[in-house]
Amino acid sequence: MKKPESLVLVIFGASGDLNYRKLIPAIFELGNQNMLPDKFSVLGVGRSKLTDSDFRVKMYNGLKEFARKDLDDRDELIDKFCEKLYYQAIDTKDAADYETLRTRLKTISKHSECDANYLYYLATPPSMYEVIAKNLASVNLNCNENGWKRLIIEKPFGYDLETALALNHQLLNYFDEDQLYRIDHYLGKETVQNIMVTRFSNGIFEPLWNRNYIDRVEITSCESIGLAGRGGYYDGSGALRDMLQNHLMQLVGLVAMEAPATAESNSIRNETLKVFQSLRRIHEEDVPNCVVRGQYMSSQVQGEQVKGYREEEGVDPESRTETFAAMKFYIDNWRWSGVPFYIRTGKRMPTRVTEIVIHFKPTPHRIFLKKSGLRGNEGNELIIRIQPDEGLLLKYEMKIPGAGFRSQRVNLDFHYSSLQHDYIPEAYERLLHDCMLGDSTLFQRGDAVEASWRFVEPILRAWKKEEVPLHGYPAGSWGPTAAAELMEDGKKNWRFPCKNLVDDGMYCEL
Amino acid sequence: MKKPESLVLVIFGASGDLNYRKLIPAIFELGNQNMLPDKFSVLGVGRSKLTDSDFRVKMYNGLKEFARKDLDDRDELIDKFCEKLYYQAIDTKDAADYETLRTRLKTISKHSECDANYLYYLATPPSMYEVIAKNLASVNLNCNENGWKRLIIEKPFGYDLETALALNHQLLNYFDEDQLYRIDHYLGKETVQNIMVTRFSNGIFEPLWNRNYIDRVEITSCESIGLAGRGGYYDGSGALRDMLQNHLMQLVGLVAMEAPATAESNSIRNETLKVFQSLRRIHEEDVPNCVVRGQYMSSQVQGEQVKGYREEEGVDPESRTETFAAMKFYIDNWRWSGVPFYIRTGKRMPTRVTEIVIHFKPTPHRIFLKKSGLRGNEGNELIIRIQPDEGLLLKYEMKIPGAGFRSQRVNLDFHYSSLQHDYIPEAYERLLHDCMLGDSTLFQRGDAVEASWRFVEPILRAWKKEEVPLHGYPAGSWGPTAAAELMEDGKKNWRFPCKNLVDDGMYCEL
Repeated sequence: MKKPESLVLVIFGASGDLNYRKLIPAIFELGNQNMLPDKFSVLGVGRSKLTDSDFRVKMYNGLKEFARKDLDDRDELIDKFCEKLYYQAIDTKDAADYETLRTRLKTISKHSECDANYLYYLATPPSMYEVIAKNLASVNLNCNENGWKRLIIEKPFGYDLETALALNHQLLNYFDEDQLYRIDHYLGKETVQNIMVTRFSNGIFEPLWNRNYIDRVEITSCESIGLAGRGGYYDGSGALRDMLQNHLMQLVGLVAMEAPATAESNSIRNETLKVFQSLRRIHEEDVPNCVVRGQYMSSQVQGEQVKGYREEEGVDPESRTETFAAMKFYIDNWRWSGVPFYIRTGKRMPTRVTEIVIHFKPTPHRIFLKKSGLRGNEGNELIIRIQPDEGLLLKYEMKIPGAGFRSQRVNLDFHYSSLQHDYIPEAYERLLHDCMLGDSTLFQRGDAVEASWRFVEPILRAWKKEEVPLHGYPAGSWGPTAAAELMEDGKKNWRFPCKNLVDDGMYCEL
Repeated sequence: MKKPESLVLVIFGASGDLNYRKLIPAIFELGNQNMLPDKFSVLGVGRSKLTDSDFRVKMYNGLKEFARKDLDDRDELIDKFCEKLYYQAIDTKDAADYETLRTRLKTISKHSECDANYLYYLATPPSMYEVIAKNLASVNLNCNENGWKRLIIEKPFGYDLETALALNHQLLNYFDEDQLYRIDHYLGKETVQNIMVTRFSNGIFEPLWNRNYIDRVEITSCESIGLAGRGGYYDGSGALRDMLQNHLMQLVGLVAMEAPATAESNSIRNETLKVFQSLRRIHEEDVPNCVVRGQYMSSQVQGEQVKGYREEEGVDPESRTETFAAMKFYIDNWRWSGVPFYIRTGKRMPTRVTEIVIHFKPTPHRIFLKKSGLRGNEGNELIIRIQPDEGLLLKYEMKIPGAGFRSQRVNLDFHYSSLQHDYIPEAYERLLHDCMLGDSTLFQRGDAVEASWRFVEPILRAWKKEEVPLHGYPAGSWGPTAAAELMEDGKKNWRFPCKNLVDDGMYCEL
């Protein structure tokens, strides 16, 4: 296991929720796994007037609640970890305060800024990204000489193509592209990273992974919950910006990419960029034919009455924000020409699941009958389960025991959870550690962010028009029926994965 | 479920072990599954002077011991079934006695021989096959007009190429090829039949099933037991005749065949014949380079002293009969050119297992490291488990959870036993039922039997020479070390499957 060099992790927005619930527990766990540098400190930065001890007490309480519960000597480890924490109150908008920050960092790191390694994590609203970058630069805290400086920014990277271009442009005034780490916590997930390993460490998948053998690719990421208190943010964003443009497009990139030349960061990122560049452009007027948006309506879910989206707290009662988006598109290159990709995401759906389904073409000729006695001919399916129940599932046809030669579909199955002895790290652990090591493989490069915004831009424009329908769907359902029409005019079906779903009369499949 | 037409099943050698232990229990089970004709009787034939009731009592006792134990109303079902049984004592060598048989059959079937369906099962020594066929023909009991006559013969079909040719020739004097059902109980096994269904009902296997993607094919069928009282028979036969020439070659046929035009019997049998015709001929002088024979020697197995082969009852103390055979060969056709096939069989090995391993080629380029940190590159393996623990296993590479992108090998797994609700019939049930229906798919055609004898004939000839080594191996081991040398001069390894094997310090893998 590689250990990073000495560094100070500077967290902007340190008194916020993300830090308390996710970042500090992830860093704590890296420490337990012996993956932190020997000399390592965290400096929390924020507007709140906290002392080091205030901050430590607060983070101590957060760790008690959110850190792994199954550790030996847990309390002792938390105590010890908190000694690495410091806090500096500044007004992040005020350039003058950054001199204080620089001095404080020098004290903690015992080095001048050009000799020290500082990792800045912007756990702040996106509106602060530019000013923080600018103010850091104004006191030389972007100095990338003997020591490095890296800047992690959280999604969203822009609100549309124009703002994404502007944000990238602004940040590049103060930091180089290779200092920028745009985090997408999806890429930190083991099962997402495993897509690449599965494809390129096995000889049997790659020969089949193209238009000759694949009928279509389907990606679903849905949640059963509604807004979970994020109504104010979500109503200004919607499913397309919140999930599709970033997370789902990342999955498309990994599923569709060519084999990279090496396992290095830019080698891999070049290949995902090529996928985004090959996406067939959707014209604004075609959007209603290939993209479906929906919004959930009040309904009974498992016996309980659930609010409709417009009744949720923080949501405009006449909101036209989508909580569901499904689309069909093509990748125009040698590998994928003619193979439709179907992706969908939604809230208040029957279950929480993220999965990729590779639908292989049926056999070109069928001599054995199906169980039903019919000559029905479905292709094999390879299902990459991202969450929950992470694993791989291959649906194939097998002989039905007994007379004759009829076949039925069975599952070849692998569950991550069967790897009992391996600790599966949380996404933030992986990403923070990679960033400390300077490995940007799992972070988004600016050009890829721009390319995926460019792809969805016509959809955003079309959806500004009242006449493009926003379909209602009952909370707890699989979304608007219009989504089914996307799939070869309803001739093929979306998969309805609902493992562990309480059967509520809903059609589902494993 | 198709039901056969009315028929009488005539079992020659009815007082023997095979009938008592295997055939009658299989027929009984077919009845329970409602797969027997409405008008159905069994006429046992043999030299022993038994009455119908003697025979019924004997079979009753057999069923009590060997029929499925988990039936409701088992005793009642057995009682009822025994009413269908009759017995006729004749001297099967004496033509005159067949007039008696003809009369008896007429009484039972209530039809003259040309209108009735008779299925003859020769559960007798092979030396009786010709005389029985001849005597049946002498009284018109081969009449295939309004009613059919079929003749089931048990292996061995000949002792070498010459005797096999002679036997086929003799039988064809009295019966047509399509009346002859050469039984190989291996073909009755569900998992053996599933090889074809797996290959030709799934779109993803066939594109990989050739010299471009397969490195080698390995077939193992081994037993942990020794002779189990069959010393007298076995010492005159040996592993090559007992297992390799028939069972293993059948598996080779199913794994290597082209897709048949239809699922009909002759369509499938034409394809397996083509495989046998494409086997690269082994020259007698090359036998020592591509075939290894062995004989087990006394050893400690799991703490107990086990006899050597030459000390077994019924075995010549200077016997040179092989109890182990392994060979490497090629199939010279477009699909398999250059792909080595490795097959082996033996007694007194560490476990009882029959499996086919398709070793796929490694990835052409490897960018992610192995768990060990090395760039080692094994190919994927598809393991078709015939027995025990019937199922399918795909070994593939997956990302090791945690930092980096290293991969490890894991199993995608399917067990037949997970099909809890399906009754898996015994081999004899399937084969008897198929024969009643006139479906010869799972029986060997004369030309295929001859072709496989032709293939092993040079080995039989070479092994007559003292100078061709017979390697000793300790009972309970994986056979002579010379077998390892067959596999690319020892550069690749045989798989050592030993699920459920008590670990005795022996290397094994799942």
